Amino acid sequence: MKQFFVLTLFPDMITQTLSYSIMGRAQKEGYIAVEAVNIRDFTLNKQKHVDDYPYGGGAGMVMQAQPIYDAYESILEKAKGARVVYLTPQGRPFTQRIAEELAEEDNLVLLCGHYEGVDERIIEEIVTDEISMGDFVLTGGELAAITIIDAVSRLVPGVLGKADSYADESFSEGILEYPQYTRPPVFHGKKVPDILLSGHHANIDKWRRQQALLRTWKKRPDLLETAVLTETEQKLVETWKLQKKDAETL
Amino acid sequence: MKQFFVLTLFPDMITQTLSYSIMGRAQKEGYIAVEAVNIRDFTLNKQKHVDDYPYGGGAGMVMQAQPIYDAYESILEKAKGARVVYLTPQGRPFTQRIAEELAEEDNLVLLCGHYEGVDERIIEEIVTDEISMGDFVLTGGELAAITIIDAVSRLVPGVLGKADSYADESFSEGILEYPQYTRPPVFHGKKVPDILLSGHHANIDKWRRQQALLRTWKKRPDLLETAVLTETEQKLVETWKLQKKDAETL
Repeated sequence: MKQFFVLTLFPDMITQTLSYSIMGRAQKEGYIAVEAVNIRDFTLNKQKHVDDYPYGGGAGMVMQAQPIYDAYESILEKAKGARVVYLTPQGRPFTQRIAEELAEEDNLVLLCGHYEGVDERIIEEIVTDEISMGDFVLTGGELAAITIIDAVSRLVPGVLGKADSYADESFSEGILEYPQYTRPPVFHGKKVPDILLSGHHANIDKWRRQQALLRTWKKRPDLLETAVLTETEQKLVETWKLQKKDAETL
Repeated sequence: MKQFFVLTLFPDMITQTLSYSIMGRAQKEGYIAVEAVNIRDFTLNKQKHVDDYPYGGGAGMVMQAQPIYDAYESILEKAKGARVVYLTPQGRPFTQRIAEELAEEDNLVLLCGHYEGVDERIIEEIVTDEISMGDFVLTGGELAAITIIDAVSRLVPGVLGKADSYADESFSEGILEYPQYTRPPVFHGKKVPDILLSGHHANIDKWRRQQALLRTWKKRPDLLETAVLTETEQKLVETWKLQKKDAETL
C-alpha cells in the first residue's frame, strides 16, 4: 500500500478533498492511505504561531523551521527513508513522468508551504525534492499536494476500475488523446463521425491514432518532438510541417 | 465581484475545498463567489447516468453532452457572456499569465470532465477555452478547476491581505523568488546569512535580486529567456553561461 504523509496547516482540507470519487474509494478499499499532519500542533509558543517576519524585511510572513521539523519527526518512524517533496514554484514542473516515478515509492512525505514560503533551512534539512505545479502562484501548497496524490494514486494497481483504463490516455503515449463521442448519434445537429459507427475496428483504431496525432500537432506540437512515432506517422507529421511552412511563406 | 460557476459531478468537493484559508475568507467577505452546479441534476434518465460507452469502442465511459448542456443553460442568465473553460490535458498549459488574463473577467464557467472525458460535441458547442494543469493525468477536472479559482482569486483586489503581498512572488517578475529566512537566527547549526541581519536595505535588495537570479539560473534557466533583466543582470547571466560552457569543455 502506498502511504502519503502531508505536513500542512490545513489537514481537513487535505482529507476532505481526497474523500470524494476515486480517491475516496481508493482509501476505503485500502489501496492508498493519507495522513495529514497539522504543523500547528508542533508550535512551542502559546499563541500557536507557525510563522514570523522575514529577516531582511519585506511583505508577508515566513513559516518557521522548528514546527515543520517537529511535525516531520513525528512521522519519521512510519515514513522512514521516504522522499520529502516540498511543493513550490521553485521546483521541477510536475509531469506524468514524475508521477510514474513517485508511484514506485512506498511512502511519500509532502510539505505544504503558505504565506511567503518556508525558512530556507528547513528545505536544506529535510527536503529531497522540490516540485512545482506549473508557472503560477497558489495561496498554499495544499492543492499541489492533493494534485500529486491524485496523479500518483491512479497509477497504483487497483485504484482505477479496469486495468486498461490508463492505456489510451493523454501522455501515456506522449501525445494527446483522440476525440470521444457517445450517445445520442446526433446532438444539436452535430453527427458522430461515420467511421465510429462502422464497426470496422482496424479503421477506427487508425482514425483515432491519426486524430490524436493531428490534435497534438495543432495544440501541442512540442509533444511530437519526444513522442514515439512509427515511420509512417513521422512522415505524416513532416507533411504537416511542410504544409505549415508553405502556408507561412505564401 | 468575481463569480465562478463550476459544472461538476462533485459539487461538494468544489465548495468544501474552497472553504479553507484565504479562499474561504474571500468568499465570506464577498470578494469572490463560487457556485457549483451538479451536472447529475440534469440527467433525463431514471438511473441518473451522466455517461455512456464511447462510439467506436474502447475502455472507459464518456460524459454525455445533454446533461452538461442543460447544466450550462441553467446558469446562462447569470453567467451571460462568460468564457467557458474546459479543464483537459488537451488544453493550453495554465500559467500566471493566463491567471492574470482570467482575473480580468467578471464571471467564469469551469467545466470538469471525468472518466474518458466529455463528448467532443459539447466542447464545440459551449467551450471557449481549453486549459490544462500540465502534462499529467488526473482522475477528474475538479482539482484543476479549484487550482484555477485559487490562482485567479488571489489576483482579485482585496483577497490577499496586503496590497504588496503579490509583488515579490515567483513569476510576478518572470523569475523565481529569493530564499527566505525567519527566526531563530540559528536553526540546527545553520545561520541566517549575515547580510539579512545587517539592516542595510539597499544591499539586502541587491543580494536578494542576485539570489533570485542565481536560483532561476540553476533551477529554471528557461525562465531567463523571457524575464525582464537590467543590462548588468544580463551580463551576469552571460558570465554564468560562459562558466558553465567552460566547465563542460574541461
